Amino acid sequence: MRIAILGTGMVGETLGSKLVALGHEVRMGSRTADNPKAAAWVKKAGGKASQGTFADAAAFSELLFNCTLGAASLDVLKAAGAESLRGKVLVDVSNPLDFTKGMPPVLYTQPTDSLGEQLQRAFPDLKVVKTLNTMSCEVMVDPARVPGDHDVFVSGNDADAKARVKQLLSEGFGWKHIIDLGDLTTARGTEAFLPLWLRLWGSLRTGDFNIHVVKR
Amino acid sequence: MRIAILGTGMVGETLGSKLVALGHEVRMGSRTADNPKAAAWVKKAGGKASQGTFADAAAFSELLFNCTLGAASLDVLKAAGAESLRGKVLVDVSNPLDFTKGMPPVLYTQPTDSLGEQLQRAFPDLKVVKTLNTMSCEVMVDPARVPGDHDVFVSGNDADAKARVKQLLSEGFGWKHIIDLGDLTTARGTEAFLPLWLRLWGSLRTGDFNIHVVKR
Repeated sequence: MRIAILGTGMVGETLGSKLVALGHEVRMGSRTADNPKAAAWVKKAGGKASQGTFADAAAFSELLFNCTLGAASLDVLKAAGAESLRGKVLVDVSNPLDFTKGMPPVLYTQPTDSLGEQLQRAFPDLKVVKTLNTMSCEVMVDPARVPGDHDVFVSGNDADAKARVKQLLSEGFGWKHIIDLGDLTTARGTEAFLPLWLRLWGSLRTGDFNIHVVKR
Repeated sequence: MRIAILGTGMVGETLGSKLVALGHEVRMGSRTADNPKAAAWVKKAGGKASQGTFADAAAFSELLFNCTLGAASLDVLKAAGAESLRGKVLVDVSNPLDFTKGMPPVLYTQPTDSLGEQLQRAFPDLKVVKTLNTMSCEVMVDPARVPGDHDVFVSGNDADAKARVKQLLSEGFGWKHIIDLGDLTTARGTEAFLPLWLRLWGSLRTGDFNIHVVKR
């Protein structure tokens, strides 16, 4: 599959490298076509890795991962271009975190909204699937690094898009427990988990953890 | 131990009954001394159960449970009276949920604050310990009803108060996994879990669940 990674940070690099290793054609998008971080990633990832602008990556792709900072995501999708996004699946792994008020960062969204919904509203023809945003990027692509049972959540309005993403999560990344929370409003729930994730990270002194929902 | 339960709702009833069953003297506080819900509970709980005003219950107790609605909690503590709260431990199991904007309810606190901290600021001589607020009241007092490993979080500024509460959680309620997140600012994290809890409740169609933090 032809996949765009939007963003050149650690999350984008980690997801991009895993997708290349799985045999996908992956183009990392950034503001400029010759972004040095993307170039370094292309060299390191090898295989079918390439780089380009956000617009290049979006036009190239069948499916996109939003790995940009939450506060930048809307502008990045605008740079990608509505025409290139039409009908495609956006896997939104970002969180609406405000880093300007000290550590830990806090959610900047209102409780009756989420970043996932903001992106969906701005691009109605895009199929936004919120997932993987409740863990470190190392755990996203390698759930087995955390022993035992633990879960990834999925939220989205389009059943086919969610099915495609779930397949990638299970067959590609190795996720055994996928909890479909329902429509995209449920992203309010998973994004709101971040304040607890950040406190657990502070308390456990590692990002190598995840949660498992245990039911009677 | 002499324990006050502030609030006559399901959470107060459930916690109160469990504490009576454990042999504690439990007084349920409400706005009026003859509250009919509290009277029904006293009859049902038997043992060393009693009722009174918030002020009666606070004066009687060595340790208090805040089982009121988040939005009412500050007024309830004012009714209990600062003098009766001085030096005591308040186990705050409430959440700052706003039910006026439709379902599910949403947090009304700012992301740089929590209900636990609001109560602590208003009553500096009270030792607020935030815990048990991330699950249904049935699970609070009977963790074994959810099979396998799962966790309760504790936040608070006073180490001795936290130690007392942890002992009650483990020896009284049977909690095997207690995660001390640190000071009371970490209550921002556990209170922010509620939006995800509410979505899980909607998706799993039961409140009989909890989460387990799995670490590498």
